Amino acid sequence: MLKYQHIADELENYIEEHKLQQGDKLPILQDLMIQFDVSKSTVTKALDLLEKKGVVFQVRGSGIFVRRHKRQGYISLTSNQGFKKNLEEFHITSEIITLDIRKPTKEAAVNLNIGLDDDVYYVKRIRYIHGQTLCIEESYFNKSIVTYLNKEIITESIFNYITEGLGLNIGFADTYLHVDKLNAEEAEYLGLQKGDPKLEVESVFHLTNGQPFDFSKLTYNYVQSQFFLQAVL
Amino acid sequence: MLKYQHIADELENYIEEHKLQQGDKLPILQDLMIQFDVSKSTVTKALDLLEKKGVVFQVRGSGIFVRRHKRQGYISLTSNQGFKKNLEEFHITSEIITLDIRKPTKEAAVNLNIGLDDDVYYVKRIRYIHGQTLCIEESYFNKSIVTYLNKEIITESIFNYITEGLGLNIGFADTYLHVDKLNAEEAEYLGLQKGDPKLEVESVFHLTNGQPFDFSKLTYNYVQSQFFLQAVL
Repeated sequence: MLKYQHIADELENYIEEHKLQQGDKLPILQDLMIQFDVSKSTVTKALDLLEKKGVVFQVRGSGIFVRRHKRQGYISLTSNQGFKKNLEEFHITSEIITLDIRKPTKEAAVNLNIGLDDDVYYVKRIRYIHGQTLCIEESYFNKSIVTYLNKEIITESIFNYITEGLGLNIGFADTYLHVDKLNAEEAEYLGLQKGDPKLEVESVFHLTNGQPFDFSKLTYNYVQSQFFLQAVL
Repeated sequence: MLKYQHIADELENYIEEHKLQQGDKLPILQDLMIQFDVSKSTVTKALDLLEKKGVVFQVRGSGIFVRRHKRQGYISLTSNQGFKKNLEEFHITSEIITLDIRKPTKEAAVNLNIGLDDDVYYVKRIRYIHGQTLCIEESYFNKSIVTYLNKEIITESIFNYITEGLGLNIGFADTYLHVDKLNAEEAEYLGLQKGDPKLEVESVFHLTNGQPFDFSKLTYNYVQSQFFLQAVL
């Protein structure tokens, strides 16, 4: 982790711990430089990263303010940090259905930008929130990037392992959503009725260098899930 | 519109017109400075804005690359520019059900950070995509910020009017999603059956200074709508 990313994490924790609210003003640049004992450019990069992640917003000529929504119990669709926090906040656990190495589907190959003969790790899990079924997850990891997975790793947070275990830098995600009706198999996994609503969330996760490494498809239990996202307009 | 915002728009149009793909490299900073005849700091600000909007990504030491997803026909949930483009691309039109000045609901007051005695413009519209019902929209605009609306304005893009007519700077949005079943009234508006799936999207739109000015609730026709969003992780 680079120094400015570390400072950004510290600042985010500071906001969290002090329960700062949307619109609360952060200390000025000079004070942050002294507090963290780093250069102006490091603080500026950290603040830019936090702005991109939707944690703060900067107002020309008046300062840096906390950006934090008011609602509890929403799963963030736009922040990975958020997802890690979600895991802890919501007690999200996983049951593994499948873990193997295989050839990608055509859809997975297109989204991962690989050939049909390349190898992927395929993971199918049921995720639980407070002990209730949250979603069915199917993920395809480009094996030339995510070189190793095992049952122990995928029982916990795969993304923690990818960043900390493999030392990869996760950059950004493109996510596609649509709403439809559950088929019989999905309904059985989720403990709902066939024909009930579902939210399907497909994401392509990229490293900071732009390479896609994970294509995942999540089918959510509509009763258990509500989502939050942030946008810069 | 500030100069760097203008340059950002030009660059976005350039990417669009030249049909650049995800991963395509943009010209280096020096070339962009010459091309637009502006300073380094203006180009840098423009690129930072485009990165926040998910139009480009910057790779340390190797350059600036186009970030552009591959799928057609998805409505963007994270970009306003995208929404304007959506309007044109998808031929989105509106039928006005209600436009009046009233006191906010408690929910609207909380989200707009105003009192229950303050005035709001209330707008209810049905939006159509290619002539099919796309969504039911209910919006509450803080009247002390959005000082005037009429039927002509709300038949077109309200956000275009807010930026160009009122000269306000739209900054960011917090959006909440959940999936549920349509009630009888919603089903009738959307031409679906009671109990069919729906996606409810609530957004709080803020000015660049952090003030919320619009709280809107959209109920989407699941058959007509698929969504796209981008995240920096």
